[in-house]
Amino acid sequence: MRKVAIIGAGMTPFGEHWEQGFRDLVVEAGLHAIEDAGISGDRIDAGFVGTMASGRLIGQEHIGALIADYMGLNPIPVTRVEGACASGSLALRQGLMAVASGMHDIVVVGGVEKMTDLGINTVSDILGGAGDQEWELFLGATFPAIYALMARRHMQEFGTTEEMMASVAVKNHKHGAKNKYAQFQNEITIDTVLKSKMVADPLKVFDCSPITDGAACVVLAPLDMAHSFTKKPIEIVASAQASDHIALHSRESMSSLKATKVAAKKVYDMARMTPKDIQFTEVHDCFTIAEIMAIEDLGFFPKGKGGPASLEGRTALGGDIPVNTSGGLKACGHPVGATGVKQAVEAVWQLRGQAEGRQVKDAHIGMTHNVGGSGATAVIHIYRNL
Amino acid sequence: MRKVAIIGAGMTPFGEHWEQGFRDLVVEAGLHAIEDAGISGDRIDAGFVGTMASGRLIGQEHIGALIADYMGLNPIPVTRVEGACASGSLALRQGLMAVASGMHDIVVVGGVEKMTDLGINTVSDILGGAGDQEWELFLGATFPAIYALMARRHMQEFGTTEEMMASVAVKNHKHGAKNKYAQFQNEITIDTVLKSKMVADPLKVFDCSPITDGAACVVLAPLDMAHSFTKKPIEIVASAQASDHIALHSRESMSSLKATKVAAKKVYDMARMTPKDIQFTEVHDCFTIAEIMAIEDLGFFPKGKGGPASLEGRTALGGDIPVNTSGGLKACGHPVGATGVKQAVEAVWQLRGQAEGRQVKDAHIGMTHNVGGSGATAVIHIYRNL
Repeated sequence: MRKVAIIGAGMTPFGEHWEQGFRDLVVEAGLHAIEDAGISGDRIDAGFVGTMASGRLIGQEHIGALIADYMGLNPIPVTRVEGACASGSLALRQGLMAVASGMHDIVVVGGVEKMTDLGINTVSDILGGAGDQEWELFLGATFPAIYALMARRHMQEFGTTEEMMASVAVKNHKHGAKNKYAQFQNEITIDTVLKSKMVADPLKVFDCSPITDGAACVVLAPLDMAHSFTKKPIEIVASAQASDHIALHSRESMSSLKATKVAAKKVYDMARMTPKDIQFTEVHDCFTIAEIMAIEDLGFFPKGKGGPASLEGRTALGGDIPVNTSGGLKACGHPVGATGVKQAVEAVWQLRGQAEGRQVKDAHIGMTHNVGGSGATAVIHIYRNL
Repeated sequence: MRKVAIIGAGMTPFGEHWEQGFRDLVVEAGLHAIEDAGISGDRIDAGFVGTMASGRLIGQEHIGALIADYMGLNPIPVTRVEGACASGSLALRQGLMAVASGMHDIVVVGGVEKMTDLGINTVSDILGGAGDQEWELFLGATFPAIYALMARRHMQEFGTTEEMMASVAVKNHKHGAKNKYAQFQNEITIDTVLKSKMVADPLKVFDCSPITDGAACVVLAPLDMAHSFTKKPIEIVASAQASDHIALHSRESMSSLKATKVAAKKVYDMARMTPKDIQFTEVHDCFTIAEIMAIEDLGFFPKGKGGPASLEGRTALGGDIPVNTSGGLKACGHPVGATGVKQAVEAVWQLRGQAEGRQVKDAHIGMTHNVGGSGATAVIHIYRNL
C-alpha cells in the first residue's frame, strides 16, 4: 500500500446555520481545505463524502454528484459513504484506500450534515435509523434511551456515577470554549449537568450531544508527493473499522463497545503502537457515557476506570491523555456525517501546532475514534506529523 | 495496484417480494454468492453495499452494519455506498480499491433495494432525490419527466422515433424472457409499448423500468489468489467513474450523458481497449431513451444512430453487440441499489458461459454501465475471463 498523508484541512463553524443550506456548508468547508492545501482545484482526482441521512433530512440523495457539481469538481468522481454517525470516518477510509491503491492521487474527503431545519422529534426519529429500525426504533428506543441503558449497566457494573459522566461534559465544554468552530463555547459546571432536564434516565440534556449543522473537509495525497504541497504533511499511519450487532440486545456487553475494541486492536497492530504512544485523541462522545466507554475500550484506562479518570481530570488538556480537545461531539457539535472528518481536522491542527488555546504540547501522534449508531460500527485512525 | 477478480456471484430473483424484507433479500443474495465462490464466511475480510434510499424506503440507515449483522459477518467492516441508481457499481468500485490497495483480500460487494412496500407516488418522490431536489423535484420534475425531455431532444436532433425507443423495450423483454431472475419474463411487441399508457410524453409505461425489490452480490479476491477458489475467475480489467451537473438544465447536452463519455474514455484507456473489443454490455436502460444514449456515448454506435441500430436488432442477442442480455433494468427490473451489482453478476455468468438461453457465444470480454440520477454519475467496468 502507498502511504497517505493529509495536506489540507478545513471546516465550517459547527452550529445552527439558518442562513446556509447543505450545499453552502459543503462548499465552505471544501474551499477552506483546498486553500489550506495550497492546490488548485484541477489537481483533485476524486472525492468522498460522508453524510448519514440527507435523504430524510433534506430530501436529497446522490450527494457525491451534488458535491462534485457545487464544488466545481466535475467530471471527477465523487462518492457518498454512509455509516450513520461514523459516515465521515468511513469517507476518510475510502479516500485513504483510493490513494493507497494508486487509483487516485489527490483526493478530497468531506463530511456534512444539515440537521436543524426539522423539528427535534423528527430528527430524533431519523437518527434512530442508525440503530435497528425494526427491533429498537419502531418500539420507541431512540438513541438517548439506548445509551441510557448502557449508562445504567456501566454504573451497575463499575460504580460509575452521574457526577463522573457530568465531568465529561464539563471538560468538553471547557475545551470547546477554546475552539472558535465549536457550537458551544461556554464553560459549564457539574451542577449545570446534574440539574439539567432529564432526557432518558440517567442521561440529562447536558449528557447529550446536540443537533448541529456543519461540514468538514481534508485533502489527501500520497505521502511521497505530500512535501511538494505542504511543509507539514500529516501521515495517516493506520486505519481500522469493525462491526457489531446493530441492536444493543444482541451484543456481548452493554457496558463496552466490541467494535471499538476490535478496531483498536487492528489499528494498534497496523501502526505498531500501543495506547501509550497516543498523545491525544478525539473520541465519539455522542453521550457522556460513550466517552467513558471509549477511553476504556481504546485501552487508555482499565475497564471501569474511565469514570474516575474523567472526574480526576486525567482526560483534560494537561492530563494523562487529552480527550476531545475540539470540544468533542458534546461542545463542538455533532452534524453526524461531518463529525468523523472534523475529528481528522482537529488531529491535523494539533499535529501542526495550530490548535491555538487548546494545543497539546509537543503533539506528534494522535488518534480519532468515530462510532456509528449505538456501536455497530467503529472506525479508528492514527496520525502523526513528520 | 493489485489485480482483482470476481470469484463468486449470486442474486435474488428481481420482482415484488411481498414475503421478504430488506434483510432477507440481502442474506439470500449474499449466501448465493458466497456459496458460488466456494469459500467459508470466515475468509471474508470486508464488505461494501450499494443502497440508494433505505432511509426513506424502510426507515433504516447504517446499512453496512445491518448487513454485517444479518450476514453473520461481524466484526468485519461493511460499508454502505450511495450514488443513487449507480450505488451498486460504486460499491463494486470501492471493493475493487479495497482489494487493489492491499487493505483487504476477500471482499463481498452487495447491492440491495426494497421498494415495493410504499405507494408509487411516494417511491417516485424518493427516487426524485437522485436528481436536483431543489431545482427539479421540488418543481415537480420526477425522473420520467426528466428523461422525457432528453427523449424529445434526441428525437429533435437525430430523428429518433417512438418506434425506435419501443424496440429497446421489446428487445429487453425478449432477453428477460430467457432469464429466470427477471421481473418480467414475457415478450412484448412494438405495439404493446406504443399503445401503453403515457407517463411523460413521449415516454409510455413500457418505456420505463419498473419499481423492484431485489439484491445481488459478488465476491472479490486478488487475481493471484483467485485460482485457488475457482476455475473460472473473472478479472475486473478496468473501472471508471465520472460526474456531471446534477440538474439537467446545467448540462452541455440534453441528448448525451457527458459522465458516460468521460468514464468511457477513462475505462477504455485503463483497459487499453476500444469499443470493438467489447463483446456484450449491460447498460443503464432506466428508460428506453437511456439505452439509446448509452450505446452511442459508449462508442458502440455513432451519435444519433443508437435508435436505428436498436430497431434493426443490432443490439439483440446475435447482433453486433448484445446489450442487456439480462433483460436490463426494463425487464430484469431495477431495485436501484442492486442494479449495478446485478450487471456484474450477469457479466460473470456470460463470461463463465452460464447464461443459459441468453448466452453470448464465445464471450471473453464484457462491460457494465451504471448511471446515477439522470446522468450526474456514470460508472463503467470492463471484465474478462481467463
